Amino acid sequence: MGSTWGNRIKLSLFGESHGEGIGIVIDSLPAGIELDMNYIRQQMARRAPGNSSLATPRKEDDEVKILSGIFEGKTTGAPLCGVIYNNNIRSKDYSILKDTLRPSHSDYPAKVKYLGFNDYRGGGHFSGRITAPLMFAGAIAMQMLQEKNIVIGSRIKSIHKTSDVRIDYSNINETLLKKLKEMAFPTLSEDISNAMEDEIIYAKNSGDSVGGVVETYIINVPAGLGQPFFHSLESQIAQIVFSIPAVKGIEFGEGFDIAMCKGSETNDPYTLENGKIICTQNSNGGILGGISNSMPIVFRTAIKPTPSISLQQDTVNILDMKNTKLKIEGRHDPCIVPRALPVIEAAAALVLLDNILEREGEVWKN
Amino acid sequence: MGSTWGNRIKLSLFGESHGEGIGIVIDSLPAGIELDMNYIRQQMARRAPGNSSLATPRKEDDEVKILSGIFEGKTTGAPLCGVIYNNNIRSKDYSILKDTLRPSHSDYPAKVKYLGFNDYRGGGHFSGRITAPLMFAGAIAMQMLQEKNIVIGSRIKSIHKTSDVRIDYSNINETLLKKLKEMAFPTLSEDISNAMEDEIIYAKNSGDSVGGVVETYIINVPAGLGQPFFHSLESQIAQIVFSIPAVKGIEFGEGFDIAMCKGSETNDPYTLENGKIICTQNSNGGILGGISNSMPIVFRTAIKPTPSISLQQDTVNILDMKNTKLKIEGRHDPCIVPRALPVIEAAAALVLLDNILEREGEVWKN
Amino acid sequence: MGSTWGNRIKLSLFGESHGEGIGIVIDSLPAGIELDMNYIRQQMARRAPGNSSLATPRKEDDEVKILSGIFEGKTTGAPLCGVIYNNNIRSKDYSILKDTLRPSHSDYPAKVKYLGFNDYRGGGHFSGRITAPLMFAGAIAMQMLQEKNIVIGSRIKSIHKTSDVRIDYSNINETLLKKLKEMAFPTLSEDISNAMEDEIIYAKNSGDSVGGVVETYIINVPAGLGQPFFHSLESQIAQIVFSIPAVKGIEFGEGFDIAMCKGSETNDPYTLENGKIICTQNSNGGILGGISNSMPIVFRTAIKPTPSISLQQDTVNILDMKNTKLKIEGRHDPCIVPRALPVIEAAAALVLLDNILEREGEVWKN
Amino acid sequence: MGSTWGNRIKLSLFGESHGEGIGIVIDSLPAGIELDMNYIRQQMARRAPGNSSLATPRKEDDEVKILSGIFEGKTTGAPLCGVIYNNNIRSKDYSILKDTLRPSHSDYPAKVKYLGFNDYRGGGHFSGRITAPLMFAGAIAMQMLQEKNIVIGSRIKSIHKTSDVRIDYSNINETLLKKLKEMAFPTLSEDISNAMEDEIIYAKNSGDSVGGVVETYIINVPAGLGQPFFHSLESQIAQIVFSIPAVKGIEFGEGFDIAMCKGSETNDPYTLENGKIICTQNSNGGILGGISNSMPIVFRTAIKPTPSISLQQDTVNILDMKNTKLKIEGRHDPCIVPRALPVIEAAAALVLLDNILEREGEVWKN
Repeated sequence: MGSTWGNRIKLSLFGESHGEGIGIVIDSLPAGIELDMNYIRQQMARRAPGNSSLATPRKEDDEVKILSGIFEGKTTGAPLCGVIYNNNIRSKDYSILKDTLRPSHSDYPAKVKYLGFNDYRGGGHFSGRITAPLMFAGAIAMQMLQEKNIVIGSRIKSIHKTSDVRIDYSNINETLLKKLKEMAFPTLSEDISNAMEDEIIYAKNSGDSVGGVVETYIINVPAGLGQPFFHSLESQIAQIVFSIPAVKGIEFGEGFDIAMCKGSETNDPYTLENGKIICTQNSNGGILGGISNSMPIVFRTAIKPTPSISLQQDTVNILDMKNTKLKIEGRHDPCIVPRALPVIEAAAALVLLDNILEREGEVWKN
Repeated sequence: MGSTWGNRIKLSLFGESHGEGIGIVIDSLPAGIELDMNYIRQQMARRAPGNSSLATPRKEDDEVKILSGIFEGKTTGAPLCGVIYNNNIRSKDYSILKDTLRPSHSDYPAKVKYLGFNDYRGGGHFSGRITAPLMFAGAIAMQMLQEKNIVIGSRIKSIHKTSDVRIDYSNINETLLKKLKEMAFPTLSEDISNAMEDEIIYAKNSGDSVGGVVETYIINVPAGLGQPFFHSLESQIAQIVFSIPAVKGIEFGEGFDIAMCKGSETNDPYTLENGKIICTQNSNGGILGGISNSMPIVFRTAIKPTPSISLQQDTVNILDMKNTKLKIEGRHDPCIVPRALPVIEAAAALVLLDNILEREGEVWKN
Repeated sequence: MGSTWGNRIKLSLFGESHGEGIGIVIDSLPAGIELDMNYIRQQMARRAPGNSSLATPRKEDDEVKILSGIFEGKTTGAPLCGVIYNNNIRSKDYSILKDTLRPSHSDYPAKVKYLGFNDYRGGGHFSGRITAPLMFAGAIAMQMLQEKNIVIGSRIKSIHKTSDVRIDYSNINETLLKKLKEMAFPTLSEDISNAMEDEIIYAKNSGDSVGGVVETYIINVPAGLGQPFFHSLESQIAQIVFSIPAVKGIEFGEGFDIAMCKGSETNDPYTLENGKIICTQNSNGGILGGISNSMPIVFRTAIKPTPSISLQQDTVNILDMKNTKLKIEGRHDPCIVPRALPVIEAAAALVLLDNILEREGEVWKN
Repeated sequence: MGSTWGNRIKLSLFGESHGEGIGIVIDSLPAGIELDMNYIRQQMARRAPGNSSLATPRKEDDEVKILSGIFEGKTTGAPLCGVIYNNNIRSKDYSILKDTLRPSHSDYPAKVKYLGFNDYRGGGHFSGRITAPLMFAGAIAMQMLQEKNIVIGSRIKSIHKTSDVRIDYSNINETLLKKLKEMAFPTLSEDISNAMEDEIIYAKNSGDSVGGVVETYIINVPAGLGQPFFHSLESQIAQIVFSIPAVKGIEFGEGFDIAMCKGSETNDPYTLENGKIICTQNSNGGILGGISNSMPIVFRTAIKPTPSISLQQDTVNILDMKNTKLKIEGRHDPCIVPRALPVIEAAAALVLLDNILEREGEVWKN
């Protein structure tokens, strides 16, 4: 059941990088939502490859064909299935990789789990490409959240050793998030943005890759969403964010830095502002006891360097069971961070939508 | 459904800090497991309060009464319910906290979510005390994993600004893990252990609290456990670990540091060792594509400073809707890290057990 | 996961007939519900043994001890755990049954499934006694449904060969349901009620047992509850009703009789009554396409004769693997139908409550 | 979440009768299963319309396009998505039905649930056509069960008032099941088969429809499959069978007849046969306590007359809110029983497969 998700809405993700198509079924969306296909395409374009000199020049046609769940432009309440057909496949690129394990990829554990029957081409079901339908589902969720004034945005916090400036987590506004969403390489400081791009180009030119950190903000979340324990908002967001390939860490509010603090520093004091309870700082990233407290939800996601590099690597050929060398040719992202960023937003949006439906029931109110 | 968890086994956690009792139902444990109650008590004692000058002197009787699922000392295959009755309750301690929101606690969001009907005494269902039955379930899981030679151990990686030394993630052995498990304050370097204890005592004496980081290792995990996407091992472990109160971050392998690296540095090369495929380093912490690759699983958990401090804090009285000051009296942990450590292990053990049952079916083989 | 249930609320049922105790955890009940313990006890008494010459004289103390989820008489929103301790246990009654398979009981398949580790005493977790906590949960649901004017009632449709008179399914009112609920042996015709009781007494006196059929009605259900396909109201009700021991069939509306009809006879025509859409007949029992249509929900449940009889039976001793004879001594119900009846109502109430929460969200409105 | 199902495998069913396409995602099928597409097509053909003078002459192209989860002819272990594109759609047939509620169809409750946004054409997601992808999934399950020697077959037990002869439930063999599967109109008595067909033709000619009962057998099921309580085999089979449109009842073994019996008649005695424990009769239909006992699983499903009839019916126009008359023109099945029969088998096969995976784990053994 690895590829199904959700409590109130249910996602069923399918597809392999070089199969017939990839897609997602979204069960139990509320009826009567008018999909803004322009907005959805725009969100999906943020993830799509081929849009920048920093990403793979590989073109993928991420046009979603909706097979069900829409009638006269609106959701019917029945399961919505969106499919992206795989048209631009170059399977021969991968044939030499059949038995040579690519380090840091899923190749080896997938081969063991699936007894060698998994589709190894392009990582198969483990490919980052499978996040395209997740992005589609998340774009629908983001559209719906906007009807409730809930806005999600992210910036690139760091690429390799280069970091963006600090921000006050208690004071994040819609203007900033909109601006970030329009930037191809969203950072607070433009200078640092350029330095980050240089890091990526340098890695690309040396046949290497780099990782980075994405920082995500969700504002106008009402207090009271979430659950205690196993379905805390942190648990839910972490679960879905870790399903994005290359993610190796997540932290909320001050995260790992909070562990180096004192309670007197990181206990966020309450105060009244215009009759509303707010915190004067936001070390906890908008979540206490697993439940939203109305402050901005803030979390950071650590993304590893793309495992596909053209430098020579040591590995094993599993057919001969012999040590061997590997150079991965092809059109790869030297840094997956900018393309992972919108997927993280999409994933978080799905969590918020699920919790709102849990709270408010199945009739959508906006 | 916040307090239910699991795919193959199902946990149902219940109880409030100052109610009649707390407990857990564990559904679908395999039949025929002989519970080692000494081992289980020993594991639970690691979490229990009152064991150290570094922790709350509050005594809690964490003796588990098993109501079902055991017959003649062995699991029957029917749901196992374990209850800890709340005997040592001092409810009046909390009466003044009814309307005064404790910063960094669940008080405010819980009040909104539950419309004010939640049991506010001691945090109610959000109390850290509710991890005692989780520890019980996890201790059963740890016992079962040991029958498959899978061992879990942890060390305190840091307390406040004091950090333990680095370890090679590709080379962690059972001897080390056993040693760590026997230490009240497990670290690699004894000197640093003392410095950490000083940090805690200093915080305690100043009415403050400190956070820290726990690093957890799981060895001898066979390759092929886990799922792609939403139920990746990272997703599953993160989900359950974030249900432990005070956790604000989790990272696997090199985690956030991997984001500052190049692919050529963190792609873990494969090699053959005695005919077995291993990695010569373990930046990915034993998980690739969400599935175990037979290397040690390594993750770190960030824990915030205990929110209950006796220093004066700014907050709001929700009854009058007025700003007010708060000093939390009582017997609190100046640092929850040492007591959270075994709960993290317990949580991870439950994930591993669930995945083994998924892989191997309901008849337990050892 | 056999003993967990639910979408919006989650039940976790535990206990064995002769263990320490039996109980249930109800997760995600709305907060702020004031439990009417008199009503709940009254409902539970309907199921309890020892109340009638028609049932087992065995006394069971079905007093529920609530361990969590209630504060100042109201639900807190946290999991509610109710336990019934097993006080009146006579385990030696069962020792001779350890290896002799009781026909029509779960003994044999349970032994295979649980490798012989199941608690065989009194059927263990398969005992009808485990329906007591289910009755408790269902009584809470029934109380809540009443706040929405939804009322559930049942009659005994038949015992052995004796059947009650026919009723018009489109015209069932609250007065009737209340009257049925107050009868120890609820039927429409009092004469038939006496004849049914005679059937039971005759069976009892001859060391035998008899089965029967329960007919259940749920009125004032709003249109639009339920789901298509796998979670149709019929699917949901059938799933939970088949969890009641001894149930062997369920049918909705005209049920198996509808299969002997023509469409022109059983298509329920719509008409307007006081501006409201109703059906002029109710062959479909209030459910179309898996969703309520505002007509009374009507279903019948077939219950087999109690398998425990004192007549001699052929069976196998599984220790020697030899054919043998068995006479079951002890205090058994000659007919379980009257005691199963309230459990069926409880089960149906839980389904309705779950669907209302799905529809309306987690804040209870009445 | 109405259209998702399963514990170990997860189904996600999607599609509307007159939308772009219908299909299913099957998550967590074991890897390495070589799909026998001929067998699968053959099974699907049993359900497809246009094959008989007794069914609708409407032609539907039920060719499944597999988008994922298959590589080199075998399952990869990743989610398998099968799609049937809707090519032969005549949507104008339905335009007059937009506001006129068809009696006994889902039209009215669906309109309420989905606030009028559901696709009303041909019943939308509630169409019997959506069982085609369920048949596809079930055919895969049936193929896999055969590798374990588990065989499923059914006969038409009755059509309208005409019933087939009785069979001994304790003695059902593979030869019979194979023979039944090859018959277009499977019954034990050929004469009765003809009489049943006459019933259908008579109904058809008079613009009416008839219902009937299907009896299903599953043989060679090992003892020990299933769960207690909420996931009893009966609960699981009933849940999925009630998702098939037009089903109004289900009963196991002697079913409702058992309710008219004495325990001494229906307690199935055990005996040893060639060292194996069997029952000498099978009133319980192979399931005790929710768990298989190795006897044939036997159940009957009641199917109502097709609601679409060309006779005039009373109903309401929901736009004007006025009483009106309705005649449903078009190509409808006068009796859906023969086409529902293979879907019932498919549904039961999915339950068995799920339970075998629960028992045996994710590596398929045959």
